[in-house]
Amino acid sequence: MRPVRSATLALALSLCTLAPAYAQSPLEQVEGDANKGTGPRTVPGRIIPVPTATVSPELAATIAKPYRALAWNANPPDAAAWTALVNHLAEGAAAAQPGWREKLGVTMTTGVMAGVPVFILQPKEMPAENRNRVLLNLHGGGYVYGPGEAGTGEAAAMAGYGHFKVIEVDYRMPPAAPYPAAMDDAMAVYKAVLATTDPAHVAVFGTSTGGGMTLALMLRAKAEGVPLPAAIAPGTPWSDLTDSGDSYQTNEWLDNILVSYQGYLGHAAKLYANGRDLKDPQLSPIYGDFHGFPPAILTTGTRDLFLSNTVRTHRKLRQAGVEAELQVFEGFSHAYYTIDPFIPESREAFGEIAQFLSAHLAK
Amino acid sequence: MRPVRSATLALALSLCTLAPAYAQSPLEQVEGDANKGTGPRTVPGRIIPVPTATVSPELAATIAKPYRALAWNANPPDAAAWTALVNHLAEGAAAAQPGWREKLGVTMTTGVMAGVPVFILQPKEMPAENRNRVLLNLHGGGYVYGPGEAGTGEAAAMAGYGHFKVIEVDYRMPPAAPYPAAMDDAMAVYKAVLATTDPAHVAVFGTSTGGGMTLALMLRAKAEGVPLPAAIAPGTPWSDLTDSGDSYQTNEWLDNILVSYQGYLGHAAKLYANGRDLKDPQLSPIYGDFHGFPPAILTTGTRDLFLSNTVRTHRKLRQAGVEAELQVFEGFSHAYYTIDPFIPESREAFGEIAQFLSAHLAK
Repeated sequence: MRPVRSATLALALSLCTLAPAYAQSPLEQVEGDANKGTGPRTVPGRIIPVPTATVSPELAATIAKPYRALAWNANPPDAAAWTALVNHLAEGAAAAQPGWREKLGVTMTTGVMAGVPVFILQPKEMPAENRNRVLLNLHGGGYVYGPGEAGTGEAAAMAGYGHFKVIEVDYRMPPAAPYPAAMDDAMAVYKAVLATTDPAHVAVFGTSTGGGMTLALMLRAKAEGVPLPAAIAPGTPWSDLTDSGDSYQTNEWLDNILVSYQGYLGHAAKLYANGRDLKDPQLSPIYGDFHGFPPAILTTGTRDLFLSNTVRTHRKLRQAGVEAELQVFEGFSHAYYTIDPFIPESREAFGEIAQFLSAHLAK
Repeated sequence: MRPVRSATLALALSLCTLAPAYAQSPLEQVEGDANKGTGPRTVPGRIIPVPTATVSPELAATIAKPYRALAWNANPPDAAAWTALVNHLAEGAAAAQPGWREKLGVTMTTGVMAGVPVFILQPKEMPAENRNRVLLNLHGGGYVYGPGEAGTGEAAAMAGYGHFKVIEVDYRMPPAAPYPAAMDDAMAVYKAVLATTDPAHVAVFGTSTGGGMTLALMLRAKAEGVPLPAAIAPGTPWSDLTDSGDSYQTNEWLDNILVSYQGYLGHAAKLYANGRDLKDPQLSPIYGDFHGFPPAILTTGTRDLFLSNTVRTHRKLRQAGVEAELQVFEGFSHAYYTIDPFIPESREAFGEIAQFLSAHLAK
């Protein structure tokens, strides 16, 4: 499956012999060792410093944090263990949300649309130009994390920074409800929004899994003849559930949120797909047809394990003639802006997304 | 200077002890070893495969190539040795150019503008809308490589793919002529272009060093009250000559063109600066004020040592309210599109740049 693993062992062992020479002259050692030939790239073990000179102190502190405990390498043995872990993590995330909303100047109500539970996030003061506009949010979390209030953080941040009304879909997830439950719920709420709102006044956004779902929702709306929204913001989208993409390798161990596809991601993908081909465009929208998609803005970072997912999606949108903007933040691991929306670079990311959506939404 | 080096040695030695455990369980080993605490990131030695599933076969072959021989880690002991190396490399690059122009359908003439030698690249067939338009190109090469015809490849590619008239500046370089010779020459030719062409018909572009010079030229034009062009395309710009930026660390040993800032780059920076502060905005334009800059498109790749230079420049342009687009190509090391303009992704990169410039140039 992953021949790189035994190759990695060989490299680790070869470093043992070469370590003294490496200390004397890293350039010669690395070049002389393996990279003079054609083939895969040999990269020595390294200690990578926090890029303090080029990021805010708050972001530097985030980059220095340890790997995200419990979440990144979870591999529960059964459905009950998954549910226990998900609920444990969700408790902590949900507990932080009232404080976030307070800081963001946002109120939250709950509701049900087309039978699906939703959270409605609104700024305390709504600008006139946003009164007829609605943003639909699909939360992240690898199709397993972020149920209930735990999944409302990104919606709250967008409501606060962008002064939009945001409807966040509390879609069903595995192990209880694998694909297509999440997409069915997203589609049902999207249609319910369209029943009362002109699509020119609607945008859809989400990060990570929510970014992948945003793209999959566009494919499904196209296939069903449902009007597309005015704009989308798929942030660092999980657009490819297979183990593909350069940054899965190059940013492995650097991203302190996802860390490695060999962590929970691969397990979550299988849990969600429930036997379905991971390359089905409803699961991995990168394999779908992006022609006719609305204008899109994509967000990622230099350390993001999904850097490749994001730039591949951006290129594919551009190849399909879609207006698509890309922003890449120095030092960001996966989805930092949704994990801590209060660091300066996160505010900047949300500000850019809000400005882009606003420019494309009808007034 | 670089405490990471001794830390790297410590890591290499620690891997010797841990290698057997690592082979059994890489996830536990890496997490257990170092990344449970706050601080720099510990990344194990790895063999990184070529991302064949997500790039064209031609690009995969480029990614698999060994480090760029001679150029990347050059450190000639004196001026004569620098000149000998630069001329040796230039001979090879120049020899390829007639073949490139033939494939691109481009002709080349030489000239002198304001006392500066230039190359003029033109497509054999010029579209009507481009007849009054001129692109100014500043070639790359770390302020040392690419004199004469060796520096004309990017200009030829843009003339061929974009069907533009391109004037490439054969600016003076160290060791013979350090800063400000290169910028003086670029500015002199830019002013000579403006003497006969409305700035609304002019765009400036360049990659790597040429990207940094493009940005420095905008700062200098602003300072001197010279009109700015309609658009710019600073590709993977050397916007910061200091050893700053996350990708100098994260993409070290992965980028098979530049490989490491500890290669020739640091030496070339000092040679060019000739004692001047590397943070002078004429040397490192990222430290300048980008307000009022023309619309810009920036290009980089997931393995580019200058990924951070590029995204930091993009963010700084956006913070200054400048219309700025970013494109990041899967698997690209530094400036691939100028080093081999014939792979599909390079054509795509040039196509996007040409389209962006065309959209902003007056007809």
